[in-house]
Amino acid sequence: MRDFLPDELSVRNQTMAKIKSAYAKFGFTEIETPILEDIDLLLSKEGGENEKLIYKVLKRGEKLDNASGNDLCDLGLRFDLTVPLSRYCANNAGNLPPVFKAMQVGNVFRAERPQKGRFRQFVQCDIDIIGEESYIAEIDLICATVSALTEVGLEGFTVRINDRRILTAIAYACGYTLAQHEKVFIALDKLDKIGFEGVDKELEEVGNDEGRTKLLSILHAVDGSDDKLTALESQLADQSVSEVISQLRVIMNTAKKLSHANMLYDVTLVRGMNYYTGTIFEVAVKGVPYSVAGGGRYDELLGKITGVKTCACGFSIGFERICGVLAEKSILSDGNTEKTALIFNKDDVDKLGDLDLVLENFRSKSQVVSIFKKNKNFQYQIKSLSACGYGSVYLYNGDGTFKEIN
Amino acid sequence: MRDFLPDELSVRNQTMAKIKSAYAKFGFTEIETPILEDIDLLLSKEGGENEKLIYKVLKRGEKLDNASGNDLCDLGLRFDLTVPLSRYCANNAGNLPPVFKAMQVGNVFRAERPQKGRFRQFVQCDIDIIGEESYIAEIDLICATVSALTEVGLEGFTVRINDRRILTAIAYACGYTLAQHEKVFIALDKLDKIGFEGVDKELEEVGNDEGRTKLLSILHAVDGSDDKLTALESQLADQSVSEVISQLRVIMNTAKKLSHANMLYDVTLVRGMNYYTGTIFEVAVKGVPYSVAGGGRYDELLGKITGVKTCACGFSIGFERICGVLAEKSILSDGNTEKTALIFNKDDVDKLGDLDLVLENFRSKSQVVSIFKKNKNFQYQIKSLSACGYGSVYLYNGDGTFKEIN
Repeated sequence: MRDFLPDELSVRNQTMAKIKSAYAKFGFTEIETPILEDIDLLLSKEGGENEKLIYKVLKRGEKLDNASGNDLCDLGLRFDLTVPLSRYCANNAGNLPPVFKAMQVGNVFRAERPQKGRFRQFVQCDIDIIGEESYIAEIDLICATVSALTEVGLEGFTVRINDRRILTAIAYACGYTLAQHEKVFIALDKLDKIGFEGVDKELEEVGNDEGRTKLLSILHAVDGSDDKLTALESQLADQSVSEVISQLRVIMNTAKKLSHANMLYDVTLVRGMNYYTGTIFEVAVKGVPYSVAGGGRYDELLGKITGVKTCACGFSIGFERICGVLAEKSILSDGNTEKTALIFNKDDVDKLGDLDLVLENFRSKSQVVSIFKKNKNFQYQIKSLSACGYGSVYLYNGDGTFKEIN
Repeated sequence: MRDFLPDELSVRNQTMAKIKSAYAKFGFTEIETPILEDIDLLLSKEGGENEKLIYKVLKRGEKLDNASGNDLCDLGLRFDLTVPLSRYCANNAGNLPPVFKAMQVGNVFRAERPQKGRFRQFVQCDIDIIGEESYIAEIDLICATVSALTEVGLEGFTVRINDRRILTAIAYACGYTLAQHEKVFIALDKLDKIGFEGVDKELEEVGNDEGRTKLLSILHAVDGSDDKLTALESQLADQSVSEVISQLRVIMNTAKKLSHANMLYDVTLVRGMNYYTGTIFEVAVKGVPYSVAGGGRYDELLGKITGVKTCACGFSIGFERICGVLAEKSILSDGNTEKTALIFNKDDVDKLGDLDLVLENFRSKSQVVSIFKKNKNFQYQIKSLSACGYGSVYLYNGDGTFKEIN
């Protein structure tokens, strides 16, 4: 977990404001949920591996006296914004429109081992469309996310897209049992890191040699083709998948025309969360080894939490990753705020009240006007004010006038 | 803890932006500290009663296996922003200017019993000046706070001011021992609620009948006077207090002239936190039973945490209370964002990509442009869009043109 110094925080706040403003222009309205949620909600098995990383909060008072073991905690810190959103939709169902376009920007917490670029408290910027079954949701989410990433100055990125139903169909077509699917997907997911040979090796451990050969030939065919979706379609003679593929084609073509972003079908895109049921997407930046945004359709999650089946689709920008990429590419720059410092000798502080009109005059001319008492080491004081961005520094003469210091 | 729906959150965000902008104009720069802090820091006895309300976070992994009782937790959720600020100043000492004007706006957590107007997660808006020993700090903090409260539309408020050293001098002058001071102050603090009789009764329980009579006569003399500071001065023939009183006089006169706010010396102002060492202040709103902002000088706290004595003074706006007061006075109003909804029949969604220029044209004319698929119950859809603030609703004709729905 980190402290943010003024300069860094100022850049973060500006970046966040740009993302929120871009989302808002697409009609997403911001909501906020508490940082603490009921521990039973957080442990409902939809968060996958993240559930192991929950910060749990000890019960208090009498409740603690009678507790032990797994019963010690009643609250936990949220590990994402999607599970709280689902709970929110259930609690506030009566106050939400039939299609609810929600924006949520906030801190989430995971007790990860500290490593470069990973933080235990970090910000996610989520947009979700609740209650829209058609792929107008996917198109809208992709366009809004591309707009937000463009607004903050990101360039050369690609939206990678796939569908969980295609992954499942491929696994079945290659003769893998349902129990083997997850291991097959994990191997697939690594293609860009470990190559075809590496995937081959991982699949060997899963078993089913015939399936492995078939899967690799599908991968080769799709990977080597310019029109990957058509290549995939010819590999899988499955009617239901044809439908999914033609939906993906519309989503990709439409989002490309509306957002002008690069769109790429990626048969190896898997995404880790258990709750995805259809389309999945990520944003990749050239030369950056991790995705900066990710999301997908999760039509079952709300039903599991609320009891009422509700379709949903979301896209989340990893704010820390965006800040990291922007910092490396030196795209970030603080606004040039005009800052004026007025310095007073100790005795003149008592007469500050007489300078009300003079101060108001300074305030009308400069965005920031800050008063300081003169330090014994005046040169050091001026130097440090300059380092803090005070472009204009004035010393009070004691007679209603100021001397400009340079 | 609460969920915030879009309308309420939008008003909160606007109010927060106004407060931050007002602070920034006075030269306060924003910092951010993590929500979780080391439990030992939080339990360092400076938080007074609030330490009993800490949410404690269970240790994880191996560390938990060997832990029990008080040793079960290693982290806690912050209960204010002042203790984290002190830790921040120690950690980042090398990167901070000699006089550091910090702004911190964030959530704090207290495991209070739920009651009206009290929340377990709530926002504080703090400004602090670190490293300034003179009362230019107090003047600056009061002016910035008054400016922020005025910006959000608050009217008819008064800054009440006192000094811990005066309270101590009064207690000694009345013959109370140091051990009795706290009880005396708690009784004093209640004057506006329980009246002179009530205070008399509470003091009776403390003991020292002679002191009680003297204290009440001081209270009567100060309370009944138009120039309360002069009245107090004539009651206490204590040289060191005279100095404090004349400082208070300068602070009050200067802040009044610069900020145009009502300033009131209040001998019964005490403030609960242990760490205050000098000036203390609060903001009271006419007809509102609780203060909406509070602060004071705490010249010892940083030294206790960092080992290096550093003077400090702060003023904190209770954001939830401000929102409550503004809501009751109906001062809040959402900005009139121009929102346009474009509705498409299911089949037309596939052809959305051809409408790129049309959509861009809509976006250039309206602040928010949101696309929707046509619902079976179209009348209900239109009604709910109107409730969400969509002033313009268009239905796509399928031929590149739209029909406006009213």
